[in-house]
Amino acid sequence: MNAGKSGSLAGIAFREAQADDLPAIVRLLADDALGRERERYAVPLPDTYRVAFESIAGDPNNTLIVAVDGADEIVGVLQLTVIPSLTYQGRSRALIEGVRIAASMRGRGLGREMFGWATGLARERGCRLLQLTTDKRRPDALRFYQSLGFVASHEGMKLELQD
Amino acid sequence: MNAGKSGSLAGIAFREAQADDLPAIVRLLADDALGRERERYAVPLPDTYRVAFESIAGDPNNTLIVAVDGADEIVGVLQLTVIPSLTYQGRSRALIEGVRIAASMRGRGLGREMFGWATGLARERGCRLLQLTTDKRRPDALRFYQSLGFVASHEGMKLELQD
Repeated sequence: MNAGKSGSLAGIAFREAQADDLPAIVRLLADDALGRERERYAVPLPDTYRVAFESIAGDPNNTLIVAVDGADEIVGVLQLTVIPSLTYQGRSRALIEGVRIAASMRGRGLGREMFGWATGLARERGCRLLQLTTDKRRPDALRFYQSLGFVASHEGMKLELQD
Repeated sequence: MNAGKSGSLAGIAFREAQADDLPAIVRLLADDALGRERERYAVPLPDTYRVAFESIAGDPNNTLIVAVDGADEIVGVLQLTVIPSLTYQGRSRALIEGVRIAASMRGRGLGREMFGWATGLARERGCRLLQLTTDKRRPDALRFYQSLGFVASHEGMKLELQD
């Protein structure tokens, strides 16, 4: 599942996340203007993250993908969900959530490579469509996804379910 | 899993779809300005729909919900997907796709009831967030979702993966 890279991405590889990666992934999720408000990176890690990781790892339709550098440090993450679906004559669709690139690696093409890897996986799984939502407060992210060919044809709507 | 209704929704109930419901569901998906272009309702039904239905029915994180009238005719459908997730401190989110209401039943509050039922299921499954995307060419749908409390905080982006 590795892919060698050249140039400024030399040494970067992509693979499925393992349980040992979890603290570094949560740190990455929390290191972001919007993520800071909702995550809690602490040592030891809150148990809720471990439980969620096991649910993802145990579900064949969910894959947590990490980008690692030459020292096997986590520098990017995203989650790919394959959704079996009746629409489009019964073709699955793939959803991407939880995309983060380490601050030190931004602007170097890592996001593009990581999406290329995720798109390949979605195709392998027979998906007809790849979809995501991006917060309207992140104009740079919108431009990035447009540069990959994503079309903002839909409104992305959220309803918080309070406990 | 049934819920009795009063007034113009008397006799309507919600339940998980069964294999026998599939032709009626596909007919409903196809009976729509956008669905017409992408679905193929025929007798016998193309096998791809049957395969997709089995994938959904066999996945505990996917539930196909139908609304049925007093004669057990399908008058509404939606798919709820529970997505285990690290974000929000490891809380799952729920995604809704493939929402259709039979033409004969529109404007009578059925969509609102069906979403109420789906939201209850998402809460039971521990979801922190309910999300969906709606095509910008469907302004009525946008207003409907806003009336339910959904906020159009995100762009909904799609990338078609051609074979």
